Amino acid sequence: MLRMFVALWAVLLSQGVIAQSKQSVDLIVNGDYVLTMEPGAAVIPQGAVAVKGGAIVAVGSQQEIAGNFAAARTVSGTNKVLMPGMVNGHTHTSMVLFRGMADDLPLMTWLQNYIFPMEGRYVDAALVEAGTRLACYEMIKSGTTSFVDMYFYPDVISDVVVDCGMRAIVGAPMIDFPSPGFKGWDDSFAAGVDYVKRWNGKHPRITPALAPHAPYTVSLDHLRAAFGAARDLNVPVSIHVSEDQAGIKTAQERYGMTPIDLLEGVGMLGQRTVAAHVVWPTDSEIQKLAGSLAGPIHNPTSNMKTGAGISPVPQMLEAGVNVGLGTDGAASNNDLNLWQEMRLAALIHKGVSNDPTVVTAQQALDMATRMGANAVGLGDIVGTLEAGKRADLIQVSFDSPRFDPLYNVASHLVYVATGEDVVTSIIDGQIVMLDGEVSTIDIAKMRQDVEAIAQKIRQDLESR
Amino acid sequence: MLRMFVALWAVLLSQGVIAQSKQSVDLIVNGDYVLTMEPGAAVIPQGAVAVKGGAIVAVGSQQEIAGNFAAARTVSGTNKVLMPGMVNGHTHTSMVLFRGMADDLPLMTWLQNYIFPMEGRYVDAALVEAGTRLACYEMIKSGTTSFVDMYFYPDVISDVVVDCGMRAIVGAPMIDFPSPGFKGWDDSFAAGVDYVKRWNGKHPRITPALAPHAPYTVSLDHLRAAFGAARDLNVPVSIHVSEDQAGIKTAQERYGMTPIDLLEGVGMLGQRTVAAHVVWPTDSEIQKLAGSLAGPIHNPTSNMKTGAGISPVPQMLEAGVNVGLGTDGAASNNDLNLWQEMRLAALIHKGVSNDPTVVTAQQALDMATRMGANAVGLGDIVGTLEAGKRADLIQVSFDSPRFDPLYNVASHLVYVATGEDVVTSIIDGQIVMLDGEVSTIDIAKMRQDVEAIAQKIRQDLESR
Repeated sequence: MLRMFVALWAVLLSQGVIAQSKQSVDLIVNGDYVLTMEPGAAVIPQGAVAVKGGAIVAVGSQQEIAGNFAAARTVSGTNKVLMPGMVNGHTHTSMVLFRGMADDLPLMTWLQNYIFPMEGRYVDAALVEAGTRLACYEMIKSGTTSFVDMYFYPDVISDVVVDCGMRAIVGAPMIDFPSPGFKGWDDSFAAGVDYVKRWNGKHPRITPALAPHAPYTVSLDHLRAAFGAARDLNVPVSIHVSEDQAGIKTAQERYGMTPIDLLEGVGMLGQRTVAAHVVWPTDSEIQKLAGSLAGPIHNPTSNMKTGAGISPVPQMLEAGVNVGLGTDGAASNNDLNLWQEMRLAALIHKGVSNDPTVVTAQQALDMATRMGANAVGLGDIVGTLEAGKRADLIQVSFDSPRFDPLYNVASHLVYVATGEDVVTSIIDGQIVMLDGEVSTIDIAKMRQDVEAIAQKIRQDLESR
Repeated sequence: MLRMFVALWAVLLSQGVIAQSKQSVDLIVNGDYVLTMEPGAAVIPQGAVAVKGGAIVAVGSQQEIAGNFAAARTVSGTNKVLMPGMVNGHTHTSMVLFRGMADDLPLMTWLQNYIFPMEGRYVDAALVEAGTRLACYEMIKSGTTSFVDMYFYPDVISDVVVDCGMRAIVGAPMIDFPSPGFKGWDDSFAAGVDYVKRWNGKHPRITPALAPHAPYTVSLDHLRAAFGAARDLNVPVSIHVSEDQAGIKTAQERYGMTPIDLLEGVGMLGQRTVAAHVVWPTDSEIQKLAGSLAGPIHNPTSNMKTGAGISPVPQMLEAGVNVGLGTDGAASNNDLNLWQEMRLAALIHKGVSNDPTVVTAQQALDMATRMGANAVGLGDIVGTLEAGKRADLIQVSFDSPRFDPLYNVASHLVYVATGEDVVTSIIDGQIVMLDGEVSTIDIAKMRQDVEAIAQKIRQDLESR
């Protein structure tokens, strides 16, 4: 009798005669094409993600999700790709103020005649506030949900990131030379440690970090101090590693070692380290990076624009290294758009190796999402669409005829899409952009603040 | 007395008391920033162009133009760059139907398992009509006003180009092997010559051309016949030159010569030739190209995506060669957006040479406009904004905060702008796009036609 009753119940349930009680969630986000970005996962057609309390509760077909969950709000997925938000593994956000100020110059001319003097004259809390907000706007618009920053006034950066609704690892910069706000190493190190202590555990979307600049601008003792403090405080280190041959030569002359071998000695491989650039690793250094806690960040636009070189990304991927993608600052890019970096990563390595099979579209997407999240140490909470992870997701519109015809979603994302095709951004469960409209930023005020500072820089440039 | 009268007249005229009679024109197009792209020309702030009968009548400040010309219609230039329409020096338009069909594969797998069989099965007049229209739409949207095509059914291509309002050099393809519609050289050559005879002088926006495929797919005798026929008919030749090392090796084994040396013998340097790719020229071949009538077309995305290599563009520019830019077909790109090519041209050569000063933003813009027009032999009629040239012009919106702040217009065009920022396109004096809306194409029908063919290709791919 009981068995008959259960069978009857199941039939009525399946036919919708009895309403199954649904789990209540905050948000259901649909997508005609859902990329979870889990390793080997196929595209889910007509898929959806259920979100509650800022976390992903379930991922599946729209039928399954709608059948099991009742949402306060549903975001339509018609003609859209739903995928994890992208991770910009290396940038200097406020340098958007120096976007296009000087290009196509020898590296030392660019640094010594433009970047350093302008930073010295104009970088203050107001510039960092305005710059970080513009950078966040640009990143939200182009589908970046997490980023790793390294710039002055990290408290200001962190406040703006919280306001804008983004997620960031904010590295307090430390360097042996005078820099905006600091006389040299001692005060920059002390201020960095203080910043980390203030922000450690303060806000769920901010991970404070220590950012000793590079092995050729920070002494070995100071590097050891920085990595030691980060270990003690249980925060990541963010550092430039093997960016260009001149810097490597300096470190090698000083210590007789290449940068990753040198940094191994201060603990880099065994603790969370965002290793920006890694353009010139040796084969043995690549092997060391594999399986380490240090994640190299590939910045193809910047590396080409500054003439730094071409990172051996195919070799690193082959070795099993988690390679992330970054834009670097807008002074050497000149935007903060990871779609350009994905496409470049998928193109340049084919070109220089004469091998069209290296860095596939899928691998470029991996680097911008799951692998990038792993590289910067956020892989446990973001980078894929999986139940239990934080809800950082974006929708990419395939509406434009540029996407006609559609045979392969990953191919179109990497070889056709631009940042302008991103229409929705949800970070930690909060909708920060819908239909291309960013809701967390006062755009008019943001632009006024930027222009007020830019006018001074422009006059300075014109008076030369 | 007369002198006094003249002086009084001049005063009244200058004060606007007497109305000066203005020359009547069809159109005035304004731009907050006007780039004429003449060599060495500065940006004209608050500039304008007057257009009559499809030609540029005058270029100057908005005050001058509004003072001297009365226009039936004026296009606003607020926050816009006004510049010459771009020249896509090499593409195979209809291959948009194969966009994203297969990527990241070894070249021979890609050609033999995908491109060749799909072309054999699906390329017909209907595919070419649908594909050319989609390609024209995409090119208009992204600011290309002229292009050099090389694909089957050149009559169909020409009709669609005329309909869409674009300007093109349409090369009739000729090859020693069977190809869509042809058994081999003889019938493809005869059909190409017939096409050229039909279209020579038929329409002011169409330049018919002969397109022998490449020195490794067309015998020396046939190359001689093609260049000879083009000379007799006074039309350009469009041909693939030194694209990849395998093709060069084949030609070298056959004739003991590298491609440009070989083609010199059949007349290439002395007659209008669009030389697509030129990835592997020798130093002496670069010297031969300088001052010749053959224009190499740099296709950075395609050359990288197929693993062909990196063209020595800085060396060609240094030698004074007019280098144009091209997208190649969308099967190896995967879009038809010259902004990507400009940016790549400005980036990759810096990266591979470790020299951030090569291929400046200004040079990349030159390659997309004036130099590209010269390379394809259209330099007398388009490529700059100059009185007497045909009125091919575009407006690029700097509205997005991505362009904040603005210090240098050329830098932002190359390192920030994308095709999506182009909002106006005027070709031969006709407005073909305004506020981003293309008026010469029925978009819904275009997409339906493409999708109907794509469905068959998709089924074919899925049945494998």
